[in-house]
Amino acid sequence: MIADRMVTYVQQSSLIRAMFEEGKRLASIHGAENVYDFSLGNPNVAAPAEVNETAIQILQEELSTMVHGYMNNSGYDDVRGKIAESLNKRFGTEFGPHNILMTVGAAGGLNVIFKTLLNPEDEVITFAPYFGEYRAYTANYDGKLVVVSPNTETFQPNLTEFAAKITPKTKAVIINSPNNPTGVVYSEETIMALSAILLEKQDEFGTDIYLISDEPYRELVYDGVEVPYLPNYYDNTIVGYSFSKSLSLPGERIGYLVLPDTLSDAQNIIAAANVANRILGFVNAPSLFQRVVSRCLDVDIAPNIAKYNANRELLYTNLLSYGYECIKPEGAFYLFVKSPIADDIAFCQMAKKYNLLIVPGTSFGCPGFVRIAYCVSHDTAKNALPAFKKVMEEVKAL
Amino acid sequence: MIADRMVTYVQQSSLIRAMFEEGKRLASIHGAENVYDFSLGNPNVAAPAEVNETAIQILQEELSTMVHGYMNNSGYDDVRGKIAESLNKRFGTEFGPHNILMTVGAAGGLNVIFKTLLNPEDEVITFAPYFGEYRAYTANYDGKLVVVSPNTETFQPNLTEFAAKITPKTKAVIINSPNNPTGVVYSEETIMALSAILLEKQDEFGTDIYLISDEPYRELVYDGVEVPYLPNYYDNTIVGYSFSKSLSLPGERIGYLVLPDTLSDAQNIIAAANVANRILGFVNAPSLFQRVVSRCLDVDIAPNIAKYNANRELLYTNLLSYGYECIKPEGAFYLFVKSPIADDIAFCQMAKKYNLLIVPGTSFGCPGFVRIAYCVSHDTAKNALPAFKKVMEEVKAL
Repeated sequence: MIADRMVTYVQQSSLIRAMFEEGKRLASIHGAENVYDFSLGNPNVAAPAEVNETAIQILQEELSTMVHGYMNNSGYDDVRGKIAESLNKRFGTEFGPHNILMTVGAAGGLNVIFKTLLNPEDEVITFAPYFGEYRAYTANYDGKLVVVSPNTETFQPNLTEFAAKITPKTKAVIINSPNNPTGVVYSEETIMALSAILLEKQDEFGTDIYLISDEPYRELVYDGVEVPYLPNYYDNTIVGYSFSKSLSLPGERIGYLVLPDTLSDAQNIIAAANVANRILGFVNAPSLFQRVVSRCLDVDIAPNIAKYNANRELLYTNLLSYGYECIKPEGAFYLFVKSPIADDIAFCQMAKKYNLLIVPGTSFGCPGFVRIAYCVSHDTAKNALPAFKKVMEEVKAL
Repeated sequence: MIADRMVTYVQQSSLIRAMFEEGKRLASIHGAENVYDFSLGNPNVAAPAEVNETAIQILQEELSTMVHGYMNNSGYDDVRGKIAESLNKRFGTEFGPHNILMTVGAAGGLNVIFKTLLNPEDEVITFAPYFGEYRAYTANYDGKLVVVSPNTETFQPNLTEFAAKITPKTKAVIINSPNNPTGVVYSEETIMALSAILLEKQDEFGTDIYLISDEPYRELVYDGVEVPYLPNYYDNTIVGYSFSKSLSLPGERIGYLVLPDTLSDAQNIIAAANVANRILGFVNAPSLFQRVVSRCLDVDIAPNIAKYNANRELLYTNLLSYGYECIKPEGAFYLFVKSPIADDIAFCQMAKKYNLLIVPGTSFGCPGFVRIAYCVSHDTAKNALPAFKKVMEEVKAL
């Protein structure tokens, strides 16, 4: 009796989420401290103290009907203004409040922008490995996800294949840097080459191709790596942001879209995105947390990044010493490790015998690899090392 | 460059929301106290004190990674359990946590359930006057909204026309009682007759027809009126609830779906709704407010209802004395008044000259009427009376 198009989704469900549930089950049997759950991008690092302090202050001092009431579907004007200012200061842009649309997380924002842009059969290009939900988000609006195959050496986008896959039906390109699942940051060189290709193809086909930059991991970078700000490189850029990772607030569903005036048809896109936010049922981003994040834009998250970095170094160094192969991630909180056996799904099953929960690369359109989400406690990372070692020993003994 | 199907939406935009923006503009010119904004169901009554107290307590005492982290897409298990228990106690049902899916408000919940159920061309029946967003929510999933014309005497559903409009393509019926925009509560007699028709038609066509009860106004009733709990009358009932009105939290986007075990195909519907919540980009209902509402289920909202009731009595009595025609609402916080001139849109324009913001019935599929949302301060209701009187005098002088 459910909709035909939901049947496959229910059957497949999300491998990642299934793993999450499995983790809870194993924890209830073996005790949470004996299960090493690297399956989900659910920060174990607490939100900076300023977040709760600010929330409490707002709840105590501001008018309840204002804090909890309806506002413009795009969000509070003052909140949008503060975010615009903060971006302008950081990236030399010239955004105003009207360029910011507060969203129910980045997932909400991406759905809003696809609803806004896509006609049936429009194509959206992405680069493998990619966040598996892009496929569903595109399908929600009858679009077609076109995947560029991965460069498994560097995990930078394969631009030759990209150029060849752009057609007159290409409405958007979605990229994610720092990348989930690889942790790779797309270099400035990559971004400039990608932009040049897009400009050329726009000219060739007389179309507009929107570049959607999905960047919940923007601030989570290591060793001083710079993440180019896409609107400064390509006019038709739309940014999707989330505070889920930077402020450890994934459950609160708070993020925003940047819709610059430089977009072709900017005014209509801004108006349509506002309507899309409403009619998709988001209505508006959660009101208290709009106000909270607007006052936490300058919170120092270096201590949190340091915690992720400690896990990154520990796992990277040790996994390599056990014989795993992996590039060193420059951002986000994922290691994308070559599966020691060809079948990445089978390898994740093997790992589970050691209470080690990791996700097959197949979920990200990149079989033969597995994702390790190291946004766990340092103890979990440390205690999991013997398990990683044992699985590898089992593989070597095969 | 925006999607074709968004063009009309952008052109029409929402009359209600346009009015909201207009209200803010007029307020900035004339001063907020001189603009009588009855356009939006945005409670002017503050959330009960327990709401903010509970939120602060949770922020101070509970673990940040738990309060702000990911949980099952359907919501925290303990929150779902508490809501199920509360419903069981109030309505004699036997729900468990698995029957509750926490949603981003009722709007989010309705989108989730339509995504879960609708195949293209499936029909969803509703009764005019109806909440205008149902049209968009249905269209989002390529469904077709079928509208039963209003009984403008009683505003109870026209069941003869309803029975005639059910076809083998009818997948769902959506009702809203206490009703927006009329304030009418569908009587137990109505619900029993409606259920009997649905059972008969299910048999006749060999189909399942889901009854979706959209009930954000359940608790907002006056004079001790009872609102029948639909799952007790018809097995294939799905309830959409929101805390927006009962706890004055519309901006926080917190509500839930009830998916009873008595539904045909219950297990698949529950699983698919969980996936739909995720892939539509909601991911989960905002986490802090899940926890807050689960601890505020027994908060006494009688003082808030009393405030709405004072406005209801004041406006109803005085508007009638000025010559307006209106049935007395039994619930919600709307008066649905016969437009003194045939053209309800023109009448709303006339009213605006007196800084009176009301919404045409046309927005609810019921031309010839206007909606007055009396969830305003009592002062606004009182101060608006001369304006209501003057518009009527202008009409009489025509």
